[in-house]
Amino acid sequence: MTDDIDAAGPAPFTAADYAARMASAARSAADAGLAGLLIAPGPDLTHLTGYRPTAETERLTLLVLAAGQDPVLIVPALEAPDAASAPGAGALTLRDWADGKDPYAVTAPLLDFRGRFGVSDNTWSLHLLGLQRELPNTSYAALTDCLPMLRAVKDPRELERLAAAGAAADAAYAQILHLPFAGRRESDVAADLAALLRTHGHSQVDFTVVGSGPNGANPHHEAGDRVIRHGDMVVLDFGGLRFGYGSDISRTVHVGEPTAEEQRVHDIVREAQQAGVAAVRPGIACQEVDRAARAVITEFGYGDRFIHRTGHGIGVTTHEPPYMVEGEEQPLVPGMCFSVEPGVYVPGRFGVRIEDIVTVTEDGGRRLNHAPRELAVVE
Amino acid sequence: MTDDIDAAGPAPFTAADYAARMASAARSAADAGLAGLLIAPGPDLTHLTGYRPTAETERLTLLVLAAGQDPVLIVPALEAPDAASAPGAGALTLRDWADGKDPYAVTAPLLDFRGRFGVSDNTWSLHLLGLQRELPNTSYAALTDCLPMLRAVKDPRELERLAAAGAAADAAYAQILHLPFAGRRESDVAADLAALLRTHGHSQVDFTVVGSGPNGANPHHEAGDRVIRHGDMVVLDFGGLRFGYGSDISRTVHVGEPTAEEQRVHDIVREAQQAGVAAVRPGIACQEVDRAARAVITEFGYGDRFIHRTGHGIGVTTHEPPYMVEGEEQPLVPGMCFSVEPGVYVPGRFGVRIEDIVTVTEDGGRRLNHAPRELAVVE
Repeated sequence: MTDDIDAAGPAPFTAADYAARMASAARSAADAGLAGLLIAPGPDLTHLTGYRPTAETERLTLLVLAAGQDPVLIVPALEAPDAASAPGAGALTLRDWADGKDPYAVTAPLLDFRGRFGVSDNTWSLHLLGLQRELPNTSYAALTDCLPMLRAVKDPRELERLAAAGAAADAAYAQILHLPFAGRRESDVAADLAALLRTHGHSQVDFTVVGSGPNGANPHHEAGDRVIRHGDMVVLDFGGLRFGYGSDISRTVHVGEPTAEEQRVHDIVREAQQAGVAAVRPGIACQEVDRAARAVITEFGYGDRFIHRTGHGIGVTTHEPPYMVEGEEQPLVPGMCFSVEPGVYVPGRFGVRIEDIVTVTEDGGRRLNHAPRELAVVE
Repeated sequence: MTDDIDAAGPAPFTAADYAARMASAARSAADAGLAGLLIAPGPDLTHLTGYRPTAETERLTLLVLAAGQDPVLIVPALEAPDAASAPGAGALTLRDWADGKDPYAVTAPLLDFRGRFGVSDNTWSLHLLGLQRELPNTSYAALTDCLPMLRAVKDPRELERLAAAGAAADAAYAQILHLPFAGRRESDVAADLAALLRTHGHSQVDFTVVGSGPNGANPHHEAGDRVIRHGDMVVLDFGGLRFGYGSDISRTVHVGEPTAEEQRVHDIVREAQQAGVAAVRPGIACQEVDRAARAVITEFGYGDRFIHRTGHGIGVTTHEPPYMVEGEEQPLVPGMCFSVEPGVYVPGRFGVRIEDIVTVTEDGGRRLNHAPRELAVVE
């Protein structure tokens, strides 16, 4: 089993790459009528600067992208050496503040005192309230509300990484099929999945869902102490980060031969997943992907058992906009990447989910997962 | 090496325990003139309900503790089964919302539309902005600003857990001294520390700082590729969670015999740490602990090399209020737990830090770490 990128990995992003991303984000903000963007540690900051502080704390770290000025990263003095060594540090000015000082007072002079700013979704309320207090005439909108697609369109070098992460997840799935299921706890299989993802180059494992039998009917079940038995359906849903970009795949396997009903539900979900992927093309609304997958499941009478949206974006996180959900009218754009993951959940008995990552091409969609989608029989 | 609690662990907290915590928090909020508290996933929610969602996402999960009503936990429908199985679920009402609905509109009827609310520090701005939009006449204060001591005073069962975490960290330190340092990378020693914490019952490792030679002079250096050499000072600072409560210990060791200067700086920091611990007693301000430790280092001429505050609280996180820092006038109260961790950092050469967790007793302070504080010589 070989992955798409060798172990040395792709060439790292440079300060020039981060400078271009920050300039593009600042332009998008201006186009949206914003005075600037305020970005706290998290995926937006990783994307724009390559900087990932050790921990998110009560100490303010904030990237300020304001109209007419170069990017400034406010950092606690203690963390300034780490920030200075971030890949994008050469493309911004660091401004540090020491314990005991008011970081909002340090930030305020960089901001238009009457401006409206986009703020990264996960910015702590502690910090937003600090800025609102310091600058009472400013206003704010969450990035999800004002610029939801800021990171949604991936460039070719990002797509290369997402494909490599997908290939690694495929490889992990191929190997898990050869390991025993019956008689082991879900958590044991989950540990195997995590180890396989790391073997295939993942630096971080975000989730390893193993939902056996009735646990599979809870789409957010992770993996517990239940011992998997012969006759169980088992939902597997796992992913993490490789070269800084995400994987996320779901397959449903059966321990021993499935019943006719189990096979039928699996066939329906597989057809729904295929319909969702087939719907992908530039210009259609995200909700059309959801509708295409849902229509199949509804047609076969399981509409009320498909209890979540069809997909979510993926990039430097395993879960981000755009969302494939009814009501999301955002048009698809080439370079967007997201999951297509319909499921059917039969309470108290079993669940089925099948998921691939798909990227929008110039004229359709292309899967980044290629693991077989047939119902695999395991032991 | 034995730890204070056997491996089976302390008796779990019950729904009644969580009910009492929520009632106490609601009373504190009312006393502070607040209409209620809004608590997102994170340490405050863990403390009040025992509920730790798998991930913090853009989907709103929010505990509403409002005057005159029972606690309500707003959760995404998908996560309702997990929330229902949380230890404190029996002490609250779950209210779920499905994908595609507006969770802020679901929350609004629970809130006084003109009220002022305390909001957990780490609540995503996305959610605070959603509530501010839905209820424009409400106002908000971060918990750190309005009720900073909400979790600061630990009860005897929490202290038992913190002592057990401290004993485990002590045990890990005792064992790391017998492992080789010279010729290995910092990251190898860090991996050993993580493994030792897990061996001693930690469910989560939060940080494993190994700062050798010049890296020790950066207090926030973690652990890198530098190969440790004979003659290096090495700062070790590590911790995580055991039985849901935190450990955090620092010791500085030397590879081979130290120079007179290195020994002298270590002696000064050790004396400063002792002075900080000796200052702890009910009624004094947090800043007095900082002043006591800092005075020693300043007296010996290294005042400008002690570039961080003296300590931080610990509980269900390894880093929380109260802070032992100049300007913090909060009086110490029996049951508070925090670090006392002065340091001296000589740029380009080495650092020294010594840290114990201390709890405030009726008439002084008691350390929860007992590992030797002498400068240990390692190989």
